[in-house]
Parts: sequence; C-alpha cells; structure tokens
Amino acid sequence: MPELRKDPVIGRWVIISSERSKRPSDFAGSRQTRRKVGLCPFCPGNEASTPPEILSTRDPQTAANTPGWTLRVISNKFPALRIEGELNRVGIGIFDKMNGVGAHEVIVETPDHDQDLVDLTVEQVNQVVWAYRERTQDLARDPRLRYVMVFKNQGEAAGASLEHSHSQLIATPVVPKRVQEELDGSKKYFEYKERCIFCDIIRQERETRDRVICENEHFICVAPFAPRFPFETWLLPRFHQAQFGELKKDHVEALSELLRESLLRLQLALDDPPYNYVIHTAPVVGEYSQEYHWHIEIIPKLTKVAGFEWGTGFYINPTAPEEAARFMREVDIHQTVAVNAE
Amino acid sequence: MPELRKDPVIGRWVIISSERSKRPSDFAGSRQTRRKVGLCPFCPGNEASTPPEILSTRDPQTAANTPGWTLRVISNKFPALRIEGELNRVGIGIFDKMNGVGAHEVIVETPDHDQDLVDLTVEQVNQVVWAYRERTQDLARDPRLRYVMVFKNQGEAAGASLEHSHSQLIATPVVPKRVQEELDGSKKYFEYKERCIFCDIIRQERETRDRVICENEHFICVAPFAPRFPFETWLLPRFHQAQFGELKKDHVEALSELLRESLLRLQLALDDPPYNYVIHTAPVVGEYSQEYHWHIEIIPKLTKVAGFEWGTGFYINPTAPEEAARFMREVDIHQTVAVNAE
Repeated sequence: MPELRKDPVIGRWVIISSERSKRPSDFAGSRQTRRKVGLCPFCPGNEASTPPEILSTRDPQTAANTPGWTLRVISNKFPALRIEGELNRVGIGIFDKMNGVGAHEVIVETPDHDQDLVDLTVEQVNQVVWAYRERTQDLARDPRLRYVMVFKNQGEAAGASLEHSHSQLIATPVVPKRVQEELDGSKKYFEYKERCIFCDIIRQERETRDRVICENEHFICVAPFAPRFPFETWLLPRFHQAQFGELKKDHVEALSELLRESLLRLQLALDDPPYNYVIHTAPVVGEYSQEYHWHIEIIPKLTKVAGFEWGTGFYINPTAPEEAARFMREVDIHQTVAVNAE
Repeated sequence: MPELRKDPVIGRWVIISSERSKRPSDFAGSRQTRRKVGLCPFCPGNEASTPPEILSTRDPQTAANTPGWTLRVISNKFPALRIEGELNRVGIGIFDKMNGVGAHEVIVETPDHDQDLVDLTVEQVNQVVWAYRERTQDLARDPRLRYVMVFKNQGEAAGASLEHSHSQLIATPVVPKRVQEELDGSKKYFEYKERCIFCDIIRQERETRDRVICENEHFICVAPFAPRFPFETWLLPRFHQAQFGELKKDHVEALSELLRESLLRLQLALDDPPYNYVIHTAPVVGEYSQEYHWHIEIIPKLTKVAGFEWGTGFYINPTAPEEAARFMREVDIHQTVAVNAE
C-alpha cells in the first residue's frame, strides 16, 4: 500500500510509493560525466577571466587575482541580482515589483579542476564552509538584504554550467517562499509547544534511528520523514541555532566532517550522482531565533520531475526514507578510501 | 537591471533576469525526439496489456477493451495511489501519515501513436477535455477524496515514460500544498476586496495586453506576471468558476480550441519543446466557490532547475513574460497549417 506522509514543518504531503519501490541500482545511468573543454575560468592562471576576488585563502606571498590560492570567492559574471542601487518597490495595479538588488557570488572550492567537493580533505572542506560563513556574515550587514542563501549544483543534470567544483551564494531583499513557509511552520509549532520543531524532530529521529544516516558530536544526517525525492538527505546541527552565520569555529570542523561523509555516502550508494544542496537558514533580520533551526538539504538528481509535481507541489517518491537511510548507512566509506589510496 | 516580481496569489517572488535574457532560439536543443520501440500498450490492438477501461469513446459496434476507440481512460498500471481501503490516519510522534488511498488514471488521447495532442482536431481535443471533466466529476463523489488533479507530461524530458500521447489524473485525500497556497491567497484577497483575484488579474491583463497571448469569447491565454519558468503560460476561463468539474458543454469547445491554439503557439515558437500542464482547480469539498478560479498552467521544459530553486522556491527566469507573450503572439499559426496541408 502506498503511504501519504506529511512534512511536519511546512505541512506538505508526499506519496511514498511502494508500487514503484526503487533501490539504488534502479537509478543507474544518472552518473556524472566529465568533459573538460576549452578554458576553465576557475582554474589557476585564468583569474583574469573572472570578476576580481572578494575573498580568498592563499599563500601570503601571492597577490590577489593570481595563482597561489586554495579557495576563491568572486562575483558571478552573469549575476541574477546586482549589488548597486535602491530597491524602489512599486505596484502596477495588483502586481508588485522591485529592482533586482542583491548579491550573486561564486565560491571556487579548489584550484584542482578534477576534484569534486567530496574528494577534498576535511581541512579543505573546512575552508569552504568557513567561506560560506564569512560571506553570509558580511552580506548580512547590508540593510537592503534580508536573506542569504548558499547552495551548490554538482553535475550538469543538477544545473551546474561549469564543471570545476564550486558553490554559489545569492543574497536577496526578500525571503524566499519555501523558507518563509518553514519559518511560519516552525513559529506555529513554537507557539503551541514552546519548543523548536527541528529539535523535536532530531530527538525523535535519534530515538527511533530508522532514518538516521550518520552523526557526530555536533551534527546529524537523516533521511527526512516526508522526502520529496529518493535519497533526499538533511544535515542538521544537534544544538539549537537559527542562523547559519552564527556557526562557531569548532562547529565548522564538525560540520565539514559530516558534510563530506554524507556526500561520500551518497556518492558510493548511488554511483556518483549529480546533486544539489541548499543551506536553509533564518533571515538576516527577524525574530526567529527560538523557533527556527538552520540545516542543509541535499538532493541527488535521480528522477525527472513530472508536470503535476511542478504544478501542485505534490510529490511521488519511489524510495521510502527508511530504505534510503539503510542503504546510506551500509555503505563502507573506509574501504573505498583504502582503494583510492592504492 | 534584473527585476524582482511577486506572484499576486501566493506571494512568491521570482527574479526576471535581464542579464541572462533569452529568446526562443537560445533554448534550441530541447526539441522532442520520437523513437518507437517495442509494443506500445496504448496502441489499438494492445488493449489487453493495460488495466480494463474506465471510460472510452468508441464505435458502439465494438466491445470494451478492443480496438475501435478514439479515446480511452484506464487505471495506471503502476498507480501512485490505490482506490481500495480506508484512509487510516495515524500519528507517529510528531509525524503524520495515512494510507495512500486515491485514484491514478491515464487518458489515452488518440489511437494514433504518432499524433501529439497538438496534432489532433479541435473535435478530438474536445473529447479529451470532456473525459477530464467526466472523470473529475465521477471521482468527486468519493467521500474519501478531496482533490482531483489532471495533468499531462509531454516528452521524455517532461517526465513522460510512454511517448503515445496521454494525460493523467490523480485523485487524493489531501489538498496539494501549492493549491492550498493558492486557495489561501485568493481567500485573503477576497476577504479584503470581495472580488476574485483571478478575475481582477484577467481584467488588468486584458487592459494592458502586454502579457496576453491569445483569447476567445470564453477563455484567455496569458504569460503570468511573475512566471517561474521561461514561456510559462496560463489558460483561464474569462467567466468566474472555481471548479473545473463545473465546466459547461459549450465551454468545453471554447477551452479545447484555445488549449490547442496555445500548445500550437508554444510548439511553433520553441521548436516543439517537451512540456507539462496541470489543471488547477478548487477542492472537491470546501468553500472556495467565490474566491478561487480554476485555470491551466502550461510549462515548457526549456531549462534545468538548479539547486537553490528546489530548496528555496525562489526562481530565476531568463525570459520576461512580456517578451515571451510577444513571441507567442507573433507566431503565424495559419501559415503552418497550410504548409502541413500541402
């Protein structure tokens, strides 16, 4: 019997379809392919072909916008939003619009064209997470901006237009709809229970363990109860924290470690699928410190999204999260490291 | 300067990105391909390979589940929901679930494997729309079900698993999230203005005409003010009506005519792209007759959806709807009919 499950935060129902039950091998063929062609603007030596760097981790002997870096943050060359100008909110009859003021940045995660985020050492992933945090905090100071979202598209099928491993950041003067729904949902729960709904979810997941994939002292990785997509994976801080930008230094390392492990488990369980992740955080301004809980949502791109899912926000997921979590747990991540080292 | 625009019904902001401005020719390569392989269960003669028909339009001399039909409605062989059983709502700690009770049907639109919906005559499209309406009304009588959604995935990239032209219908015991947001948004507007927001949108669009693609006496086709996707297209009744199932006979014909014309304009403007459409309607039960207004949302599959759009519900659209509407208006639909007739 298929099952209907409700996301406890935003109230979205999904179908967990047993009739179409799918194991990792059923998603074969989604594997990423590499095809380096032409000049890569993110490779060392090509710094002049990108906008100037906003932030970098580099050998102090080297100058900005030259080789010698291990991580670079630059403006997107084709930004979806522009940092200059005023918002200029206007109505046109019943419609509302404003200028596309905001920031759109690119985090180049490594100088090595052939390494994905999952291939980096924990120290290198640390640098990436630290850059996310630095840029989030910096942009939060701009009074025109209300929200900073950090995300990564890995692989062409997941929307990446350049294959050199990178993440992106978009800062906006509005709160994105899905995030606002999460804020509203967690607020409603908090008003009723005086507890954070995400903290309650973590507590329940750690008790039953059916959907826990892995965890460390500070973070936990789970398959959510009502996932939209097969092998949808969430990474949450085990301590309560509303804004990603509030992340403390010793937590950066624990997060990097578990992010890397989660991606490695996905890679091994699903034969290196394209994926996206997005950091969901509270808005820059706002009263959500008690009720909201930031987290990372990782979605491997395994299935095509059909018409009614677009139109209705109603998803059919062919893999139960308990199954997905079990496959992810059973991956032997150490064995593979040994194979690579040979 | 890019622009931020807000959907007036559900309040979702989208970025209309002028920097990435795209014309129809920029979307080349999304064209559908045909590759008939093996037995098609939807072709005449293969009726035994599908579940038995629920409804059909056929020569009265012929028996059910044999050739002689022009349209067939059958249960989905791999249904996402099952019609038997009770809902059995249960909580598991903070989580909620219920049995996947519902209907999942397939409308085979034509016996001809090589014709798409857009190739059919208005009379044949009439049959399809009539079948949508018949099945919607029939399923609305089941007290366990709250919502009937009709949708179509055309082309593999749009999620169609079989190429023989067909639509689908899913009836659910819950209201899909996106629809609930539209209901809430239109209700809020109605409480404030005592007018239907969709009727107001239609009135404003018919005055400015910037986003009107085509219309007839009873229906109108527009590019919405804040579209998520390039060439997103909405088809609305010009008269107020909350439920698609209430559609009158003489309106069926006018709808079929404009649906066919809209799809033809998309096909010609964008070189036969894969697409999805979904009929958005009020729930089977509920008090939305004054405030909601059913409509069809058509989305050609031209771009890959990136990670942050999944995660945040915040979309970057590279084609302004005024541009898209202009391209769609300027298509010469009669010329092509003449070419085909030669």
